Amino acid sequence: MKIRTTSSSALLMFFVSTACLAIADEPIQPIKPTKITKPAMVELGKKLFFDPRLSKSGFISCNSCHNLSMGGSDNLKTSIGDHWHQGPINAPTVLNSSMSLAQFWDGRAADLKAQAGGPIANPGEMGFSHALAIGMLESIPAYTIEFKQVFGTDKIDIDKVTMAIAEFEKTLVTPNSRFDKWLKGNKKALTANELAGYKLFKESGCVACHNGPAVGGNSFQKMGVVEPYKTSNPAEGRVAVTGDDADRFKFKVPSLRNVELTYPYFHDGAANTLPEAVNTMGRVQLGKQFTTEENAQIVAFLKTLTGDQPSFKLPILPPSSDTTPRPTPFEK
Amino acid sequence: MKIRTTSSSALLMFFVSTACLAIADEPIQPIKPTKITKPAMVELGKKLFFDPRLSKSGFISCNSCHNLSMGGSDNLKTSIGDHWHQGPINAPTVLNSSMSLAQFWDGRAADLKAQAGGPIANPGEMGFSHALAIGMLESIPAYTIEFKQVFGTDKIDIDKVTMAIAEFEKTLVTPNSRFDKWLKGNKKALTANELAGYKLFKESGCVACHNGPAVGGNSFQKMGVVEPYKTSNPAEGRVAVTGDDADRFKFKVPSLRNVELTYPYFHDGAANTLPEAVNTMGRVQLGKQFTTEENAQIVAFLKTLTGDQPSFKLPILPPSSDTTPRPTPFEK
Repeated sequence: MKIRTTSSSALLMFFVSTACLAIADEPIQPIKPTKITKPAMVELGKKLFFDPRLSKSGFISCNSCHNLSMGGSDNLKTSIGDHWHQGPINAPTVLNSSMSLAQFWDGRAADLKAQAGGPIANPGEMGFSHALAIGMLESIPAYTIEFKQVFGTDKIDIDKVTMAIAEFEKTLVTPNSRFDKWLKGNKKALTANELAGYKLFKESGCVACHNGPAVGGNSFQKMGVVEPYKTSNPAEGRVAVTGDDADRFKFKVPSLRNVELTYPYFHDGAANTLPEAVNTMGRVQLGKQFTTEENAQIVAFLKTLTGDQPSFKLPILPPSSDTTPRPTPFEK
Repeated sequence: MKIRTTSSSALLMFFVSTACLAIADEPIQPIKPTKITKPAMVELGKKLFFDPRLSKSGFISCNSCHNLSMGGSDNLKTSIGDHWHQGPINAPTVLNSSMSLAQFWDGRAADLKAQAGGPIANPGEMGFSHALAIGMLESIPAYTIEFKQVFGTDKIDIDKVTMAIAEFEKTLVTPNSRFDKWLKGNKKALTANELAGYKLFKESGCVACHNGPAVGGNSFQKMGVVEPYKTSNPAEGRVAVTGDDADRFKFKVPSLRNVELTYPYFHDGAANTLPEAVNTMGRVQLGKQFTTEENAQIVAFLKTLTGDQPSFKLPILPPSSDTTPRPTPFEK
């Protein structure tokens, strides 16, 4: 019996190490499900994420442009802001954004907390100010109680607001994609066509930038390595942050997780479909012209990266009090 | 044994009839929880309710102005439409709207189904057309499958779209308010102050219009019965539908269910707070000037009308296909 146990253990070890190797050998790793360590802060952050009163108009919330019903994006070329302002750049998905090396296309925010304060005070986005947002929150008794429960103090400030939003955003990971199931050893999770697409994705060089658990998000790269990328969008990328000419047109490589849901593509939102995006990337980044069949195979692979979407009840927001300043959507 | 059973039954009958009488005696009846008879249609309708692709911009959904996180309203004086258009009238809550005798402030739609098509095609609201909305839906494989499952046919039309949205909206009832618990016999559900408010609400005449399970929504009444209502809003109410001069300034009496959540008040959204609304109503409808204490008591009663808010998971929308026409938010 002892011998049999040992040999079973050995067999188990063999399978476990094989499975681990199978994952370790690939340039993409499965997404780990979120572990919520601060549930009360996550719940508060979820409310704030959905609360349009953080905008001047009372109409635009984080979820307006990072719509969690639509892959954490707005599926628009560039976003709509206060007074229907046309945004300068495509809104990146909030899904799996905690895995990015930095936030925004040019990486100007170090992390989600640093990012979250930006749109609130941006005149072309939510058009508010941090002071007005805090005043609004402090006027709502249910919010002050919740902030006290979460942070142990009555005093609301932008630091706590963005910390809570970021804590919620960290939960927005999308595990269990078919590709991750394949990575974990379920060889039936992908079709032959999808697998051929993955092979092409690796062999063609896509994987040089789109790797890691987020299949991207972990480096800045020049848009237009082989051939200049033509766009009417004036964004110059990372140079705006570093001032270094070598960073001109360098953008954060977007995550390809859930890419089926996050159209249109690129910082200018110029590519409406995945075939178009794959074609352009091949051309300007790799100097390759994929055949129609190759393109379709890569697209088939990319669609296996759609994971479990965030699943939670629509938050119910605490009502304003009589002293809460009312939004002024039509005032300039 | 037989006798004891009979006497138990008699006792039970006594309690039941007392409870029924307790309810029947009041001009307001409890809200009944929704009974979902067509769950697949409700799920489809929920997706459509949250889908901004039913608008020209791809940015505005039913939920934008009837936000289910905020009492089924947008909490704005008048709503924001396509290209930031300023709406002409306050967006009524969608909560318990199935109980209304008709839809819109002037009752121009007979029911929720008739209402649902309006905003989609209104240039100042979602700015789309029914034909374009149907074209969008038909281009999305997951939607065509779902319509087929629900309606037994591939053919999507505006009739099915609005039927599904209405079926979802019928589920948006808010039972179990503290007032309903009191109505059902739990005498501890209200404080003495709230009960005093209810007594005043009845004795002052508010209940003449605000009655029934929705505490309103069941008649058209003139805004400004005793004293003309002063407003810069040009809406003339029911006359626009009937052409009858007697209907000038008649509006559908709004439901007071969840009124704590549905500020600002009146068809012009002119009253920001409940004390202000109660004061104005007393003056222009009843010729009464409530004292500060009376006003506070009525407001305390009104806040007991907040019921269970809709509780469901945020719907995940099916992605557009490569052939789905892309929204054009910045084109005129």
